[in-house]
Amino acid sequence: MHNARFESCIKACLDCAVACDYCFSACLEESQVQMMARCIRLDRECSEICRLAASLMASGSDSAHALCKVCADICRQCGEECAKHEAEHCQQCSKACMHCAEQCSQMAA
Amino acid sequence: MHNARFESCIKACLDCAVACDYCFSACLEESQVQMMARCIRLDRECSEICRLAASLMASGSDSAHALCKVCADICRQCGEECAKHEAEHCQQCSKACMHCAEQCSQMAA
Amino acid sequence: MHNARFESCIKACLDCAVACDYCFSACLEESQVQMMARCIRLDRECSEICRLAASLMASGSDSAHALCKVCADICRQCGEECAKHEAEHCQQCSKACMHCAEQCSQMAA
Amino acid sequence: MHNARFESCIKACLDCAVACDYCFSACLEESQVQMMARCIRLDRECSEICRLAASLMASGSDSAHALCKVCADICRQCGEECAKHEAEHCQQCSKACMHCAEQCSQMAA
Repeated sequence: MHNARFESCIKACLDCAVACDYCFSACLEESQVQMMARCIRLDRECSEICRLAASLMASGSDSAHALCKVCADICRQCGEECAKHEAEHCQQCSKACMHCAEQCSQMAA
Repeated sequence: MHNARFESCIKACLDCAVACDYCFSACLEESQVQMMARCIRLDRECSEICRLAASLMASGSDSAHALCKVCADICRQCGEECAKHEAEHCQQCSKACMHCAEQCSQMAA
Repeated sequence: MHNARFESCIKACLDCAVACDYCFSACLEESQVQMMARCIRLDRECSEICRLAASLMASGSDSAHALCKVCADICRQCGEECAKHEAEHCQQCSKACMHCAEQCSQMAA
Repeated sequence: MHNARFESCIKACLDCAVACDYCFSACLEESQVQMMARCIRLDRECSEICRLAASLMASGSDSAHALCKVCADICRQCGEECAKHEAEHCQQCSKACMHCAEQCSQMAA
């Protein structure tokens, strides 16, 4: 793949999207869904934004940097929210989000 | 719909996405595809970003404003590129893009 | 627009996506989120599938019919789930889903 | 991750989406864009469908199987089209598509 400098950021975005999708589903099955409402909302937004950021990077779009900035922000928000919850899916999602936030911040710089 | 202030911007984004999708397809069927390469690329990016912007607005996401800013930029680029081509699909797409760019700029402000 | 026979189905899909996005957000703010868990899940899926179906139709994709079939199914499920809840956002979403299910079924036929 | 049986199919879909996005961009820069028109169209559709399929699987959607069936079809079409072109990006994309088609077919079964 020619656009090698994007590769680790693309991977971080796609890993984050999968972690968010899984966390979204698991949150909806928790006994205390009420407590997870913000997590559910952010998981969904983060997944969609991450997937689009990955696609724009992979296709060499000039808008990739601008979307990575938005992506870094939502990843940070989602990562911080998930960090508050003890559930394994939230803890793993938080890690994936924080890693992606870092990668996207560098890409957006 | 409660988030009425978003309504006209959501509509502009979805109309723009449809115009871009249609223009994308029509460009690929032109006899001079070469000349339409940048149009094809921007149509695709613009469609995906518009659809996500509309969804974030409709779901009341805190990231909607940030995405509208990115959306205004891609709409402007796509609208300017399409304006260069005489084909009806490009002219219509350009109009939809420029209208959406305006709406999204206001939303992002 | 040349692909006029798709127009009413595209409109139904995009209207449905917006209704689902709005319902998703409103469900997360209900006092009894627990009861809305299935609604939240289906709203999200339905929105994403509807937006993709609309885009495939607008761009004249050969896969549009196949996706409309999947879309009709998720719309029906989401419409039936939303119909169970009295909230205005659920009732409106149910109507948009049922209309879209009908349109997509005809398109898929 | 609980839904382990989906993992390899999710990975195949996301790898395929990235390969398609990259191929889409590279095709638009070829000297003979005309010849790549069908490739460009299918790359785009395949990328969007693959990303949605991955997301539905990761979030445990009941619609995942139905979308995997659509995904297997578009992957096969895109893989066959790309196989006709000698460019490295097309050859790699073809492989990713064919692998994803296989994984999605099994998932849809």
